[in-house]
Amino acid sequence: MNDLRATLTVELDRLREELFELLRIPSVSARSEHATDTRAAAEWVRDHMRRSGLESEILETGGHPVALGSWRGAGPDAPTLLIYGHYDVQPPEPLDLWSSPPFEPEIRDGRIYARGAADDKGQLFLHLAALDVILRTRGSLPVNVVVLAEGEEEIGSPNLLGFVQKYRERLGADAVVISDSAMFAPGQPSLLFSLRGLAYAEIRIRGARSDLHSGAYGGAVPNAATELARILATLHDAEGRVAIPGFYDAVVDWGTETRDGIASLPFSDEEFREGVGSPRLAGESGYSTLERLWIRPTCEVNGLLSGYTGEGAKTVLPAEAMAKVSCRLVPDQDPDRTIELLRSHVAAVASPGVVAEVVELHGGHPWRARLAGPFFEAARAALRDAFDVEPVLTGEGGSIPIVGEFERELGAPAILLGFALPGANMHAPDEWFPEAHLELGIETIMNFMQRAGQR
Amino acid sequence: MNDLRATLTVELDRLREELFELLRIPSVSARSEHATDTRAAAEWVRDHMRRSGLESEILETGGHPVALGSWRGAGPDAPTLLIYGHYDVQPPEPLDLWSSPPFEPEIRDGRIYARGAADDKGQLFLHLAALDVILRTRGSLPVNVVVLAEGEEEIGSPNLLGFVQKYRERLGADAVVISDSAMFAPGQPSLLFSLRGLAYAEIRIRGARSDLHSGAYGGAVPNAATELARILATLHDAEGRVAIPGFYDAVVDWGTETRDGIASLPFSDEEFREGVGSPRLAGESGYSTLERLWIRPTCEVNGLLSGYTGEGAKTVLPAEAMAKVSCRLVPDQDPDRTIELLRSHVAAVASPGVVAEVVELHGGHPWRARLAGPFFEAARAALRDAFDVEPVLTGEGGSIPIVGEFERELGAPAILLGFALPGANMHAPDEWFPEAHLELGIETIMNFMQRAGQR
Repeated sequence: MNDLRATLTVELDRLREELFELLRIPSVSARSEHATDTRAAAEWVRDHMRRSGLESEILETGGHPVALGSWRGAGPDAPTLLIYGHYDVQPPEPLDLWSSPPFEPEIRDGRIYARGAADDKGQLFLHLAALDVILRTRGSLPVNVVVLAEGEEEIGSPNLLGFVQKYRERLGADAVVISDSAMFAPGQPSLLFSLRGLAYAEIRIRGARSDLHSGAYGGAVPNAATELARILATLHDAEGRVAIPGFYDAVVDWGTETRDGIASLPFSDEEFREGVGSPRLAGESGYSTLERLWIRPTCEVNGLLSGYTGEGAKTVLPAEAMAKVSCRLVPDQDPDRTIELLRSHVAAVASPGVVAEVVELHGGHPWRARLAGPFFEAARAALRDAFDVEPVLTGEGGSIPIVGEFERELGAPAILLGFALPGANMHAPDEWFPEAHLELGIETIMNFMQRAGQR
Repeated sequence: MNDLRATLTVELDRLREELFELLRIPSVSARSEHATDTRAAAEWVRDHMRRSGLESEILETGGHPVALGSWRGAGPDAPTLLIYGHYDVQPPEPLDLWSSPPFEPEIRDGRIYARGAADDKGQLFLHLAALDVILRTRGSLPVNVVVLAEGEEEIGSPNLLGFVQKYRERLGADAVVISDSAMFAPGQPSLLFSLRGLAYAEIRIRGARSDLHSGAYGGAVPNAATELARILATLHDAEGRVAIPGFYDAVVDWGTETRDGIASLPFSDEEFREGVGSPRLAGESGYSTLERLWIRPTCEVNGLLSGYTGEGAKTVLPAEAMAKVSCRLVPDQDPDRTIELLRSHVAAVASPGVVAEVVELHGGHPWRARLAGPFFEAARAALRDAFDVEPVLTGEGGSIPIVGEFERELGAPAILLGFALPGANMHAPDEWFPEAHLELGIETIMNFMQRAGQR
């Protein structure tokens, strides 16, 4: 590793400047006016890989394109890594809350501030830079590599699964490596052991044909808003458990090892509560806050709309009411099955005075890491070497549906190696990435590739 | 009455044309761009009364003015009637749902279509016309009369109570007569025995400091929308009764006479259900539909708003949630006391993980008629004479808060004599008033005044 570290030290300023180039491209995938910028970012990634020595091209998807790179010089006996990342970013608004312009990267107090610095240009670039440094130093990589940089992650990756299925042959790999998450704490590297899945639906209630006068009709005609509230109140029991029959049937028991590991992490409920600013915390009884976030499923109301919502008093008896409801899922819950259970439950508890409908909007499977194997061990050792601390295992309450899809489609385990820090403002103003993690991240990834090649 | 009927026959075309003049004035009190029109309607009423022989003037209120008329030639021993009505109208929107323009009155199939035809210009005009016909025929009225036509009824009469208190001396009367409601059915005149009151509030829930990601925080942080739904679900029990402790304490028992009277009215639940278009009817068990509407209080959710309500899926954990909630009250429930009970109940059931606030928005007392006395009997007899059917007693689910205020401030009973018909589209497109009720209404009112003068 000494030769690689030496090159990295020499090349770091150039690499940082290259990252800033990429961060300056406003590749906001959700905004059609940025379609050209988004494609420019794909081309930038393609060109960077090409300059480093990878075969590289733009592949169309029907939406924003994929920049695909590959290097297969390690030969058929060496393992192949699929590196996945995304070059698109969230919209930067509200702009007035940024301390510096979102597409003009700036370093302040050891942080690189820019939209995409953490999510995910900055972390995708760690891999591009690692490949560049190794190839520049040694002329070859210790593993075969495929890099898949997509441009639609921030809009739900609508074309990615189809792309993976179409190009399965070219994407074949022994492990999938993704850097799009955060470490547990500053100085404390971590490896993800789980991601929650998602089952998102809309509950729609209809009572009368149209809104009615709440005086002339109130008391004798079903009220869609009242009915909706009554249905939503049946989603949990008094212990904070989800009360949809069958909801927990597929939930895997993580066992004492995982729960002990979670319990051993330094975590303060009071600090967490102060951070979110709610009077108290809440959740399923019998579980700690981190367990509630990482290994237990949820059912949340994401939105409510019915009747009159403007200023003052309007005496309307609402004919319609709508709730957005989503469940975060844990292994082995299934999104479609969860929506079916929700649908059956709503049908069972809804009053015959209204028509209740459950419409599925979005779904994704939960994911559970294989906490063993050569690639997992390589990642663990590489993190330990770079940060000089034993990495901890953490869960993630959010969902990255493509992780499970990669494993299913390619039959390869996913390794989630995050280098951002908590509070990185992903999806918010003043997104940042620790400047020191540019070097530490590249070093970790080079070390990981080295170890993966020796498996 | 024969002399009056003869004049009415002769003058009817002129009177109808005058009503159309009034209906053509777009006196939409809620819209500042119609302020001049609204004043023009007040002046029209003043001028009409003046031409008929009343003393008449415009009095300012701070908002839209009052047109006040009086005729006191019957002498101090004769009774005095206070006639209350309003010359302002609801906004006509949505305009595209009108079959003819809202301010261009048109007769089709025996109905006068126009905004205000029923609510309340058409019914206010019945009184103006009756006074005109009697004075034109006889040169004097059988009673003293004060006419109070206000221009803010459709925006909640914010200045009326103050006006009544300020001019109490000039408004002193033995009975208050109001025509701003509907008959029970075509050909079936009715007298109101009750109006429900109103207690309208907003329930506001706050959890975290700001909206959070439902993946990263869901399961461990209180959800304002879920909490709101849980609170709203406690407002009723399984029997459809309002479950706010103390809610029914002040409710007066109407006794079997009233309930028998209601039960004897021709009413079809199935026709009512088809009219509103809901799959079934619902309400407090142990009471019929008309009882639920007229003599039982309610608690309705009028609006819901929280989190994400747009298209598709957004994984937000809402920090805030809002419900508009209003109770229709029956004698002797009190609006302020009802809000207090609601506030105590919400405080008792709200989770400590959120801050719950109940903000009072609007209120009005319920009203119960004295079903006896010379004026009530005069109204009953006049209706019987004009429609050739014994009038029935009906309740009204809606609220006209000023009715109770008149009784309290002036110490005079209110008589509610409605001539519109069910389905008149008050507050909706294609508002109408039965053309035949122009003549029948004027005749009834003349007869009533005659009888009131003989008390």
